[in-house]
Formats: sequence, C-alpha cells, structure tokens
Amino acid sequence: MYVIEFEPVGRRGVCPEGETLLECARRLDVDIVNVCGGAGVCGRCKVQVVSGAVSPPDAGEKEALTDREVADGYRLACMARPLGNVKVHVPPESLTAPQRTQVEGLELAVKPDPSFQSMDLELTPPTIEAQHADETNLREALARAGLDDCRIDFAVLQRLSPRLRTEKWRVRAAVRPESRPGASDAEVVAVGAGTGLPTRWCGLAVDIGTTKVAAYLVDMQSGRTLGSKGLMNPQIAYGEDVVARIYAAGKSAESAAKLQTLLVDALNDAVGGLCDAAGVSPGDVADAVIVGNTAIHHLFLKLPVLQLGLAPYVPALRSAIDVKARDLGLGIAPGAYVHLLPNIAGYVGADHVAMILGTGLAEKDGVTLAIDIGTNTEMCLNRRGEMASVSCASGPAFEGAHIKHGMRAAPGAIEHVRLDGERLSVQTIGGLPPTGICGSGLLDVVAQLRKNDVVDSTGRMRQHPLVRLREDGMKEFVLAGRAGKDDITISQKDVRELQLAKSAIRLGVRVLAESAGVHETEIDEVVIAGAFGTFIDVESAITIGMLPDLPREKFSQVGNAAGTGARLALLSLPRRREAAAVAARIRYIELAAVPDFNLKLIEASAMKEGAY
Amino acid sequence: MYVIEFEPVGRRGVCPEGETLLECARRLDVDIVNVCGGAGVCGRCKVQVVSGAVSPPDAGEKEALTDREVADGYRLACMARPLGNVKVHVPPESLTAPQRTQVEGLELAVKPDPSFQSMDLELTPPTIEAQHADETNLREALARAGLDDCRIDFAVLQRLSPRLRTEKWRVRAAVRPESRPGASDAEVVAVGAGTGLPTRWCGLAVDIGTTKVAAYLVDMQSGRTLGSKGLMNPQIAYGEDVVARIYAAGKSAESAAKLQTLLVDALNDAVGGLCDAAGVSPGDVADAVIVGNTAIHHLFLKLPVLQLGLAPYVPALRSAIDVKARDLGLGIAPGAYVHLLPNIAGYVGADHVAMILGTGLAEKDGVTLAIDIGTNTEMCLNRRGEMASVSCASGPAFEGAHIKHGMRAAPGAIEHVRLDGERLSVQTIGGLPPTGICGSGLLDVVAQLRKNDVVDSTGRMRQHPLVRLREDGMKEFVLAGRAGKDDITISQKDVRELQLAKSAIRLGVRVLAESAGVHETEIDEVVIAGAFGTFIDVESAITIGMLPDLPREKFSQVGNAAGTGARLALLSLPRRREAAAVAARIRYIELAAVPDFNLKLIEASAMKEGAY
Repeated sequence: MYVIEFEPVGRRGVCPEGETLLECARRLDVDIVNVCGGAGVCGRCKVQVVSGAVSPPDAGEKEALTDREVADGYRLACMARPLGNVKVHVPPESLTAPQRTQVEGLELAVKPDPSFQSMDLELTPPTIEAQHADETNLREALARAGLDDCRIDFAVLQRLSPRLRTEKWRVRAAVRPESRPGASDAEVVAVGAGTGLPTRWCGLAVDIGTTKVAAYLVDMQSGRTLGSKGLMNPQIAYGEDVVARIYAAGKSAESAAKLQTLLVDALNDAVGGLCDAAGVSPGDVADAVIVGNTAIHHLFLKLPVLQLGLAPYVPALRSAIDVKARDLGLGIAPGAYVHLLPNIAGYVGADHVAMILGTGLAEKDGVTLAIDIGTNTEMCLNRRGEMASVSCASGPAFEGAHIKHGMRAAPGAIEHVRLDGERLSVQTIGGLPPTGICGSGLLDVVAQLRKNDVVDSTGRMRQHPLVRLREDGMKEFVLAGRAGKDDITISQKDVRELQLAKSAIRLGVRVLAESAGVHETEIDEVVIAGAFGTFIDVESAITIGMLPDLPREKFSQVGNAAGTGARLALLSLPRRREAAAVAARIRYIELAAVPDFNLKLIEASAMKEGAY
Repeated sequence: MYVIEFEPVGRRGVCPEGETLLECARRLDVDIVNVCGGAGVCGRCKVQVVSGAVSPPDAGEKEALTDREVADGYRLACMARPLGNVKVHVPPESLTAPQRTQVEGLELAVKPDPSFQSMDLELTPPTIEAQHADETNLREALARAGLDDCRIDFAVLQRLSPRLRTEKWRVRAAVRPESRPGASDAEVVAVGAGTGLPTRWCGLAVDIGTTKVAAYLVDMQSGRTLGSKGLMNPQIAYGEDVVARIYAAGKSAESAAKLQTLLVDALNDAVGGLCDAAGVSPGDVADAVIVGNTAIHHLFLKLPVLQLGLAPYVPALRSAIDVKARDLGLGIAPGAYVHLLPNIAGYVGADHVAMILGTGLAEKDGVTLAIDIGTNTEMCLNRRGEMASVSCASGPAFEGAHIKHGMRAAPGAIEHVRLDGERLSVQTIGGLPPTGICGSGLLDVVAQLRKNDVVDSTGRMRQHPLVRLREDGMKEFVLAGRAGKDDITISQKDVRELQLAKSAIRLGVRVLAESAGVHETEIDEVVIAGAFGTFIDVESAITIGMLPDLPREKFSQVGNAAGTGARLALLSLPRRREAAAVAARIRYIELAAVPDFNLKLIEASAMKEGAY
C-alpha cells in the first residue's frame, strides 16, 4: 500500500500495489477527466508526477505525450502505477470540475488617479534633410506637451521605431510623472496606438496567496474591473506551506528560479486570458500591483528567502518597491513597473498591508480588528489610530491538510454541518454527494459537536450515537456514509488539529488587545477578510472560542480584501502612498517573543464562548 | 567546383567536388588546427557551416561533437565535404595563428572620476527583538554615511542577504551619486566584499567594430588598464558590412536576437578572460562604456535597425543612454549600468564620438581633421571649435574583401610593398610566406604601381614586365609566385576597388573643408585613428590621392582612439559629459545630399598627389 497525494485538490489516500493513478484518484474522488475509460487512448488524463516513482511509460503513453512532457514527469493517470509513495499534480485541464476560488472583494469606490498619465503625441516624420532620431522625435513631442526632461524606458525604445511608422507618427504614451517636483524621474513606460483605435491603458492587480491566486484586470481610466480570475498557486507542488517552499527555494538557485518561473508562467497565462476576454493586448497593461505574504513576495521577486526561515526571520526587503515587469518575466508592457506593497515583517507581508488598505482599517474610529484567516493568520488591531499586527501559525487545517477526510473547497466538499440531537444534516459545495470536508465544514462540524456536547470544552470527544471507536482506539464522528467506500468522519485527532489552529488565532487576538490596552470585549468591529473567511460561519467560530464573543452585528465578512487593496493601490497613487505610510506606522508584535507564550496558548485552547 | 568562404579570416576560393573543408582550407592557406592529419580522430578542426550544404556527419564525427554542436552546424573540417557553395566560420580555437587586432591607443592621462563612488559600510546584525529587513539595514548604513535618499538596484537586493551574512555585515558598495543636486536618483549599483580582501571596483570599455572588437578592463581607482583583448566580431557570419547585418536582423525578431546574443556571448567570454587574468570577478565590474557605429550600437542594444537601412536613415536613438547590464545580458555586476556614448547620425556613431574624445579633437586650435578609415570612413573637421562630420562608404577593400587575393591582416598577409623599376620587395605579417594581401599592402602596392607609372592617374594599368594578361583579358600585376599554387596578383579590377574607396574618402575631406570655408592645404593637422589607420603608409595614401598632400609632419597615426575615448568616458564622468556636449554640437553633413555628388566623386578619383 502506497500513500498517494493529489495536488492542487489536496486529497491524499492509500493505493494498493498494481492500481493505476486514475483508479486511485477515483476512489479518492479526485475527478480526473477520462474519455476512453482508462484504455490509454484519449490522452485526456494527463497528470504530472511531482515526487516518487511510478511504472515507466509504455509505447502508447509515449505517443500520447510529447518528449518534453515525458521529461517533465507527465503521465497518463490511467496507465501509470505507483511503485511507492507518490505526489501527483493534476493540471486544471485534467480536472472535470473547477475549484472554488475567491476573487471578489469590496466594490471599489476610488477616483482613478494612477501612477502614470496617458498622453497623445504627434511626431514629425523625418526627412533626408532633417534626420531626426526616433527618440529625439519623441522627446520633442513630449517637450511640446510640456514634459521637458523625461526618461524613455529602454524597452520602449527597443519597440519605438516600427510602432511610430505603423501608427503614422501619432502615438499614445503612458508617462509616469516626476515622483516629486524637481526629481527629474518622469518616464515613458509604454507607447501604444494613437491612430484608429487608440490604446486603452489597463492595469493588473494580483493577490498571490500561498494556495490561491486572484488576478484582476482593471481599466485605468474608468477604474472598472474588466475581469477577474482565480487560479491555484502552482508553487504548491514544492510545498503546502511557505516554510516548505523557503527550503525548496533555498536548495539551489535553480529551484528558486523554478519556483519563480512556475508562478510567473501561471500569472502570464491568467493575464493572457483576462486580456483576451477584455479585448486588450498584454502590451496595453501599463502598471501592476502585486501583493502576497513576505515569503511569496520574496519568491516572486527572486529575493533570497533562507534568512526568512531562520531566526531572527529577517525579510530581505521591507519597503515598497517598483520593479520593471521585464525583470520578473511578467508579460505586460515590458517598460511597465510592477509595484509591490511593503512588507511588515518576515511573516506579515504585503498582502496584509493590502488587506488593511482594502478594508479601510486605518481610517476607522474606535477599536477595529481586521483578520485574514489561513495557514498563517495575520491580524491587525487599530485602536484609534494606533496600529499593531501579529501573525499566527494557524496551520493548514483550514485547507483540508492533516485532516483525514479534509480537502479544499472543491465541489463535493462538505461546507456546512448542523447537528440537532441525533439529526445530522450536511451541505456540500455544488450539492454533490459528499467526498470530503473543507475548512468551513470542519469549523462547523466541530462547533456543532461542541454545542451538542459531543466535544467538551477541553476538546475531548464524548459518547454519541454517531461517535464510534476505530480499530486503533481513536474516536471518530461519522458525517456521511458512502456506498462501497469508507465513511466520511471527523476523528478526535481532527478536532485537535482544528483546536491548535483556533488557539493560535485566539491568542493573536488577545495579544493585540492586551498590547493596545483594551479588553477583547471593547472591540467595536471585527472585519474578517480572505477567501476562507468569507465562507466560515461566525457563530461556529465563536462557539469554539476561535473569535471573541461579541455581538454578531460587529462582525463583517468582506471577501478578498487583499485583492481589493491591490486594486486600490493600482488605481490610485494617493492610496498607494497611504499604504506605505500606514505600513511604516504599524507596530509588529512577534508572538514568539511574548512572555509566557506557551501558557497563554494553552489558555487560548479552551473550546468555549467568551474564554477571556 | 564550389565557392567556399572561410570566416572570420576572410578567405574565399573554389573547391573541387569531393574535397574536404580541411583540404580546401589548406589550399587557401587558412590555418586550421589539425593534430591527427585529417583522420577524423583528434576533433581539433571544428568549424561551423554557416550556409550551404555539406556531406552529413558520420558516426565518428558525431562522437567528436556534442549534439548541440551538430545542431548548430559544427563539423570536423577533415570529414565534411561541400555539396555546393559553402560559408564556413572557423572559431578562434580552431585557428593555428591568431589574427592581428589592434587594441592599443593613446596612453590615458586622466584623473579617475568615475560615475560611481566606493563606500565602505558597516551594518547592524539583526536580532529577534530588532528584526531589521536587510534592505532597511543597508539604507540605515547609507544614511549614516550621509546618503539619505538612495535607490538600491533590484539585482543588488536579489543578492544582498547572503552577501551581508558571508561578509559579516561589512560591505563595500558602488554608489552612483545624484545626477544633479535634488534629483534623488542616487543608486547602489553593486555590493561587494568588505571584509578580508575588499572588492577592487573595475570598469569595462569596449570598442565594437564591424569586424574587430577591442575590450579593456580598467581599475577604476588607479585608472590603470589591467588588460586588453582583441577579438573578431562574431556577427560577421551574418554579413561583412553593416548593411548586410541590418537586413539579417530585420528578417525576424529571432535573427536580431541572435545577432545580439552572438556579440554579447563573445564579450562575456572576453570579460571572463580579462577578469581571470587580472584576478578580479566579473561581479566587481561596476561600470561599462561601449561604443560602436550606429548600426552596431543598435544591434547591441536590440534596437530596431530596419529604418537605418532605408531613407532617411534615421537612428532609433541618438542620445547617450545608460542601460542596465542585465537588460543586455552582459555578464558584469548585474546592477551596473552600461553607458553608450551618443550617436551623431545613421552612419556616424558612438565610436566616432569616442574617437573625437580619444584624439582630443574638440580641444585643438586651428584646423584639425580626425579620420577613422574602414569599411565606412568617418571623419570630423574642427575649424577653431566649429565641428562637422561626414561618413564615406569606402567599402570593404581595406578588409581584403572584393580583392582577388585580399585577406585580413593575418600572418602571411602582404602588408608592405616596394617597387623600384623591376625590383619588387614584399613584406608579410610575421615574415611568413605570402598567402594574400591585406589593406595596407593593397594601398602600398597600388601606390608603388602609381609611382612607377604602371598605373596612370586615371587608374588604368599599363605595360610592365610584371603585368600580364589573364585568360579573361584582365591585366594583373604579379606580386608573388608560389610553388604549386596560383600567383598572388593585383588585377586591374582590384586597383579599381581601391580607387573607389580612396575617392569616397578624399571627397569626404573635400566636402568638410569646403563646408568649413577652408582649403585642404589650410589643414593644420591630420589625426589618423583606427586599427587600419595605424598600419597604412601615409606616403602611399598621399601618392594615390586618398589623403591631401600636406607636409608629412602634420599627420599622426594614433591607433584605436575610439577605444581610448571609451576608456576616458569610463574613467571620467566629466569626460563622458564632454563627449555628450561635443556630440550635440557636431554638424552632420549627409554626403548623399551634397550638390553634384557624382561629379565630385569622379573628380576625387584622380590617382595623383594634390588633386585639389
């Protein structure tokens, strides 16, 4: 029996010797496309073996795959048989049902005031008597438009001559104004069409999560979001969490480069798709704002990460930075800058700053907590302008990892659970037969078990008609029986995993409140951000003591506020500057340095409402 | 019989069917290394087939070559047999004798005042209580050293974290100061070792000619040239002259990229060799100045060139530019800038500006002519501060092309000739048996023929014991007989080729003089720059009317002044700025737009002293 893991769906299970990857995937309810019924003919069930050994490809498989694919570990799932523990990446096109990702946040209410201005320029065609260089010609047109001292990006120059001629010497330029009067750093970052249909400048905002990525294409004139796209972070093949990826990248310069390329390739695909759908060219995308946690930020920028994984956990870069798109391989206008919002600390990154911007936290009166729940949960408390942030290692339980029947929020995942005495009802994503349990479902089921006293306030599981003893002596609660398959259950161990996560989060809230000199009950507002936070039941979170017991109307769930913040920073240079100013003001509290950390963590583990 | 061309040595000849490339090369005196005597065993006679078909590689050849080499057209000269007309590139390592290239110019007399300053910085190691980001840490050290507002290059950031730790938080930084007070564009372009042996910052100056490249490694503190290296421009495989290369690059984005990569790869090899010899690392090279003619400048920068080949022959870029080394793939410190001096026009480039800087032309009193003779001959006349330049299409005769026994200045080339009645003496490079005639030899022999009245003032060849009639009716002068091989001769056609070249040059001198309102005889000084100019006999040039008949002491031959100018611009920011100011001041005269151009060209063709 081998352990097989399917990524990015996050399903893991055992596979008897001799079984194919497709058979194993079916048993684990990973829906791999398959048209020919496993005969090795249709070639639709391509998967990539990320680690571990499988049977060598036969002649038919080699025919269905390109040499490059074979070299990259691609196989037909219906033909490859594991020879040991194997980790398999299922590419999106081989999945029958798309995963649920969250890209929508607050609607934007901001006046577009981007980092560049659009200028329509008319140049003078050169003659043999007046052999103006094309660059001189552009400079003179800029001077006529009032811009006397302006840099022209090198990549713009590299494309200028043919563009001027096809556009008959009328072009539209994207120009970054001086950063401050007299700085003489105004710069032409893109030159587009000026005749016929003049270029409509767009911008790209991306929130790169450890697991999921949300990309937005924005019209920089109207401020309208033209399209959005959710995708999985392909780096997941190198590790579920950022620590695993830091070590993967630290192995060699090649691995670090590979992690970056994987991500940028996926972003370029997304940009291509978004642009196609909106009827614009990637070359018309003249600005980008990208946010992510500190490790993801560093990996994306090819900055060194090893020091992030070792005490004192120091980022290479904290300040906001503008990097040329071409330096990152990002397929937008090559002279465009990519703006990265500042990081706060090694485990509080630019996505946190974006969340603060997206929720408007810094402008709120009173005492407000903003929280983004995930593998790492970052939160920020604003007490009348005094702001502090912490990061809690809440672990991957919400992503379905380390939970026996855990899975990501894909169709068939149990997302809501109600238990009323012995009456159990479960709701799955897409209303499909249940195949596992996702984070919001896990939170619900444990809360329901707690409410019905099946789990006590220390987290111990008690007797109940649906609780049974496994052969290994572990208690488990049966959520759903399945014909011909093992039941979907929540075990004592699963409850403990969730308890660990919730303790870390609750401790974070407490430390922030104490450090601000307020009691948890004095919090006026709790803003829950992030994809996961959108789907959780606040009542459940309070029931198990993950969040403080405040009146329910004080909570709001705002979706992907980091993505919203990224779009705000993209559309509005004043907001971008505000984000930098706020980031500089935030006090970072290192939880590991809090006195009596372990004692406080145990206190925070109590599974009850109003623990403090 | 097939026509075989060997590059970059510039030898061409016919090859009977069935002969190997090695046999053909031997007959043409191209000295390809060969240890095993043509048995296909030693693998030393690797050549690259650039165009045309040869016999397919056999098993032995495939063993001697890598797959990559085979794919790139590499073959063993001793095994490959032409199947048609073939162009062959002989890589330097397959040539027994190095070619003569010219890298030395005037000695430098300049106080080093480079574009960056070296700063020794001591940073504060971070702790868990003070988790300074590495970039913040560097910024604070810069602030302590008086630099409050400073950009840090992105590539520097990408390498900073491990460097700080291996150097124990003491580093030496190369910092470009603000371009003017208040510009806030100071920038850290490299961070080197600060402990043990601190980094010695170096600079790179390169003069890229159409045929030859001269590279210099300079110590930026002492100003000493640590090493110099001459190499062939590998783009020659894509065309002898710039026009051929413009069309080759214009074919597709891939060809343009290939032309750039070829050149950069060769430069990187040269940089590696120079650094090795000087005991420094390419990462310690923190600045570079590169010059070349406009087409080479554009090809190197991957700027579009098609518009250079079409009227009105407009450069994409005329101004000086600083480009990040990484944007060009140049293997020096990746945050370093590469400075390109300004161009003047489509056919008067940055190398001309460098020559003016290197000869000090702009500072000279009186009337001075500076001239760089080559495939294109550029010259500049300074009449008491008023400066004008022209470019003359002098053609490739001086490089040995289009001349029956022409060759480049390689060992065995006839470089000097004296004819005294019937007594003929020839001198070859290296004193080897003659294998052909190079540019200075061609100039000499035609001048000697003219002096002895074998060629009349219209360029017609007369009777002489050494003049004979070929089968095709063409007259030719026998320079050297060779046992078992055809004689080395100069034909009437060869004389006409040289006459074309000299007419273009002399017309340029005349147009400049007329435009400055002086007579040629009023020129106070003639500075002959360039590799070829070093080796020519001024007397011969005057005899055939290529240069005006001035007292001989008014001429000086200064070697590679463009290379000297590049080094001056590298070492001294004031000189670099002076070059830009001079370039902006120079009036460019387009010869094609001169009234009665053809008539004047015919007048300039007279083969006699003092024609005007």
